[in-house]
Amino acid sequence: MKICSKDYLMFSFNAKEPPALYVEQGEMFQVETHDRFFGRREFDTVLSEVGGGRDPLNAITGPIFVEGAKPGLILKVDVLKLELTDDKGVVCAVPGKGGFADKIWETRTKVVRIKEGYAYFTDDIKIPIAPHIGRIGTSPPPPEEIPTGTAGRHGGNMDNNMLGEGSTVYLPIFTEGAFLGVGDFHAVMGDGESVLTGVEVAGRATLRCEVVDWPPITWPLLKTRDYVMNMVSAKTLDEATKIALDDMAKLLQRIRGMDYIDAAMLISIAADLRICQIVNPVKTVKVIVPRHILPI
Amino acid sequence: MKICSKDYLMFSFNAKEPPALYVEQGEMFQVETHDRFFGRREFDTVLSEVGGGRDPLNAITGPIFVEGAKPGLILKVDVLKLELTDDKGVVCAVPGKGGFADKIWETRTKVVRIKEGYAYFTDDIKIPIAPHIGRIGTSPPPPEEIPTGTAGRHGGNMDNNMLGEGSTVYLPIFTEGAFLGVGDFHAVMGDGESVLTGVEVAGRATLRCEVVDWPPITWPLLKTRDYVMNMVSAKTLDEATKIALDDMAKLLQRIRGMDYIDAAMLISIAADLRICQIVNPVKTVKVIVPRHILPI
Repeated sequence: MKICSKDYLMFSFNAKEPPALYVEQGEMFQVETHDRFFGRREFDTVLSEVGGGRDPLNAITGPIFVEGAKPGLILKVDVLKLELTDDKGVVCAVPGKGGFADKIWETRTKVVRIKEGYAYFTDDIKIPIAPHIGRIGTSPPPPEEIPTGTAGRHGGNMDNNMLGEGSTVYLPIFTEGAFLGVGDFHAVMGDGESVLTGVEVAGRATLRCEVVDWPPITWPLLKTRDYVMNMVSAKTLDEATKIALDDMAKLLQRIRGMDYIDAAMLISIAADLRICQIVNPVKTVKVIVPRHILPI
Repeated sequence: MKICSKDYLMFSFNAKEPPALYVEQGEMFQVETHDRFFGRREFDTVLSEVGGGRDPLNAITGPIFVEGAKPGLILKVDVLKLELTDDKGVVCAVPGKGGFADKIWETRTKVVRIKEGYAYFTDDIKIPIAPHIGRIGTSPPPPEEIPTGTAGRHGGNMDNNMLGEGSTVYLPIFTEGAFLGVGDFHAVMGDGESVLTGVEVAGRATLRCEVVDWPPITWPLLKTRDYVMNMVSAKTLDEATKIALDDMAKLLQRIRGMDYIDAAMLISIAADLRICQIVNPVKTVKVIVPRHILPI
C-alpha cells in the first residue's frame, strides 16, 4: 500500500507545491502524521526548534493528488482505519487563545499517557479515547493558498470529534487532483476543543478516495454509522450557526424534496445543532441529522 | 399526592402573586402543564383566543412555594416522572424568529402524532421521543419579575433536551419559598431548538424538591444518569460559551480542588460544549461533563 510519509509537510492547503503522493480512485493508501508538537513536550521548543520560518504547530501531511479529481466535483474520503502511533499525547493551554482566553495566565503543556483505550489526564482521571482527524481538506487553485489552521468550504481545521475510523467525509474539489492534506489527529477531544487542543497525537490513517458528483454539497459533509452532518465555519458561533442551519435545510430540500420550512421544522425537532470547535481563526458548527432522515 | 393544576398560569417568574401550591421538602408532587398552544392548532388563534392581555405562548404552571427555601441556598429538583398527556404535539415556525429567521416566509404550525414512543413528522419520518421540560425556574424577590420566555441564573426557558425523567436540576434560590414555575414540555427536540419550537406537548411531571447548600453553583446545573452540565444564557452564543466554560472550570476547581488551567484542559478533552437553544431572547449553552469527573 502506498504511504504518504509524515516527512511531507504542508503549511497551507495549496496546489503550488509538487504532490507528495499520487493515488487512484478506490485505491487504499496511508497517511502518517506527526503529533502537533512533533514529539516535543514543551510548547516553546516546538516553535523554536521545528519552525524553519514556518508555523510548525500548523503542519499537516500532504498534498495528495487524487487522479480524476476536478473542480466542481466532490472528493469522498473513507476513513478505513485510524491508528495512534504513540502512547502519549499532549494537551496545551496558551494565554489569550481559545475559549478561556484571558483566564489562562501561563503557557502549559501536559503529557497524557494513552493506555488500553484510555487517555490518563491524571492517574485518577482517565477518559475513553475516541481517535479522530482534526484537519482534512482540499486545496484552492494556485496561486491561492489557505492556512492549515483555519477551516472553510474546503474542509481544513474543522476539529469534528466524530471524524473517526469508519466515517466518510465529503469535500468540495477546487483544483485538478484535489491536493488533499491530512493531519492534527486527536486521541480524544470534547465538542468545542475548548482550551485550544485535544489530546494531540501522532498517527496513521488508512484512507480511500473517490470522486463523485453527489450529494449536492457546498460545505463539507460527514457520514458516520448513525448520522450525517455538515461542518460550517464562520467568524462567530452565531454566524456559523445561521449558515449551517440554512445549508442543512437546503440539503434536506434537495435530497428529500422537502419544502424549506418543513426542513427547518424537522431540523428543530430531530437534528442536533452542535459545536465542533471555538478555538481556530473561524469557529465551526455542525448540524447532525440521523441517517434515516438524510439518506446519502 | 398534591397536584399543581395547569389552571394556575404564570406569565413571569415572580413572587408577587400568591403561590398555587405549598410543598414540603422531600414531598412528591405533580405539576400539570398545557402544551404551549393550549390545545389550539393554529398559531394565530392562540394569540387571539387565549391571551387575555398576557402572552399565552409563554404561560407555564405555578408558582410553587417550597417550605424552607431561602435566598442564597439551592433548590434541588428531582424529575421523578414525566408523562405526556396528549397524543399530539405541535411544531411551529414564525417569520423572523429563531435560527432560520428571515428564511421563514409564513407562519406554519404542524401537528405531530405521538404513538408508541415515536413522534410522526410525516407518515414516513418518525423520531423516537425523548420527553423533557423546556422551562423550570425560581423567582426573584418582589417586585421583580422575569419573563418566562427567557433564561438566566434562575433557570427559565433553558430548553435543555436532557432535562427529562430521572434527571435532577439545581437552581439558585432568590426569594423565600423559591416560587418555582414549570412548563414548556417537549416530546422531542434537537440541540438548538433551531426553528423555534420542539414538539410542544401537554404533560404531567412528578417532582420532589429539596433545599441544599451544595454543589456551589452560580448558574443552573443538571445531573443525568451519566452526565453533569451547567446551563448558561447570554445575548450571543459566543458570550454564553465564554461564561459557561469559565463557570464549569470554576466548578471543577471548587469540587475537585483542581487548578483553573488544568480544569480548562480537562474540559477541552473530556467535556462537550453544546448548544441548548438559539431561539429565545438569550441563547443557552451547556458544558457536559461525565459524572466520574464532576462527582456531585
